[in-house]
Amino acid sequence: MDFTIHKILIEAGDILKEKYRQTQSPYEKQRWELATETDVEIERLLVERLRQAFKSDGFIGEECGTQSGGTQRVWIIDPIDGTTNFIMGKPYFSISVALEESGEITEGYVYNPISDELYYSTKVSGKSFLNEQPISVSQTSEIGQSLVVFGFSAKMQAIQQYYQDWQRLFTDCRKGVGWIAPALTLCNVARGRIDVFVDSGASTFGHSAGAFILKNAGGTLFNYDMADYSHQSIGIVGCASSMAKVLKGS
Amino acid sequence: MDFTIHKILIEAGDILKEKYRQTQSPYEKQRWELATETDVEIERLLVERLRQAFKSDGFIGEECGTQSGGTQRVWIIDPIDGTTNFIMGKPYFSISVALEESGEITEGYVYNPISDELYYSTKVSGKSFLNEQPISVSQTSEIGQSLVVFGFSAKMQAIQQYYQDWQRLFTDCRKGVGWIAPALTLCNVARGRIDVFVDSGASTFGHSAGAFILKNAGGTLFNYDMADYSHQSIGIVGCASSMAKVLKGS
Repeated sequence: MDFTIHKILIEAGDILKEKYRQTQSPYEKQRWELATETDVEIERLLVERLRQAFKSDGFIGEECGTQSGGTQRVWIIDPIDGTTNFIMGKPYFSISVALEESGEITEGYVYNPISDELYYSTKVSGKSFLNEQPISVSQTSEIGQSLVVFGFSAKMQAIQQYYQDWQRLFTDCRKGVGWIAPALTLCNVARGRIDVFVDSGASTFGHSAGAFILKNAGGTLFNYDMADYSHQSIGIVGCASSMAKVLKGS
Repeated sequence: MDFTIHKILIEAGDILKEKYRQTQSPYEKQRWELATETDVEIERLLVERLRQAFKSDGFIGEECGTQSGGTQRVWIIDPIDGTTNFIMGKPYFSISVALEESGEITEGYVYNPISDELYYSTKVSGKSFLNEQPISVSQTSEIGQSLVVFGFSAKMQAIQQYYQDWQRLFTDCRKGVGWIAPALTLCNVARGRIDVFVDSGASTFGHSAGAFILKNAGGTLFNYDMADYSHQSIGIVGCASSMAKVLKGS
């Protein structure tokens, strides 16, 4: 196995870890969406390092948009998945990188540098790993037993929409929470810690790598409206495959 | 300074860190409240070690209740603040220990072993520290600039109650989220990362140590109904002191 990407992630993660210790001065990309200079700094570093390693590849990042380069192989980058957590002092954020080849995701990497959890998967291996150990989803098959994450913050309108769209899951699950770092949360489904993740607003940057890792760990993916999953859509539902049927029916 | 407690916390934290890497089998203390064997294990270890160090002290813990011992000096223990996070794979949980002497909190310790963040304060020092560096609250004085944490999960009725009780804060803050590890979140207010924390359900185990740390970092505390804070009440509001007046008026 080629550990080029791992090394790049660890280099960027060391910077992110250092920055986490410092107080941030966030700015607003738009109402309710905070970002920091560190988001931009990490994205630039990732593009630079990946370009050194893969000269003809293209790049698309959450902060800087599309970079010049090829279109056959494109790296989809979220420099900080969970920026609000990073700002507000919660060590639940990650660097998320996916490789798209001819329109299909073929590699995914999600790295939390604080907890030192590096999730990854490649099409070649067909498996998913956490720090080199294979991972797989839970066997949970009932809503009443399921641990569920919704992708909400404290935006009342959004919460009410989740409640309306997912009432049975919301009300009857074993426990539900609102978390806002989709890449890491998809990996926690992949690892069997969470049974269902529902996010109406996650972008391609936020979910491409995590969804690929979840799929190869035995999970099932949908768009938010339960249509077939596309990594280019906004929103996602990711679950242990044993939960897919019950979600379809709920 | 006496680092007896720090050493005990680090010993317990090493176990908690190890357990976090393993998949948990949670049980339900009551509907919506999960716990694990690790909660009990950590609490027992803390009581044992503190008893070795302070033979005549009393103990009251979230998991095992009141232990035999003195009533003049009582240790208030939350072995895992944020158990749901611990179970579901979010490294935002802590060991929280407060010392109550003649009914007053005189020491507080909150330790996240994953991010290696140890917050503490003693009455003698009158200050609060994160890993030996003094910390202080933010200077934020407007709701529109404030970063706010509400202590909610995905329990719709509770969220609606927060929304009703705190509508202006909920709607007009710069960004709001729902987090469920009160001890650590009070420390993030103490550290200036968050401006306001509102929790309707936090117990004395969850907030005693964090509230003491926040107070000595320049923060202001209230009960959930904005009455004067008592560490024995259920619920808490903790904020940077510059936010206290605006919260009283809102």
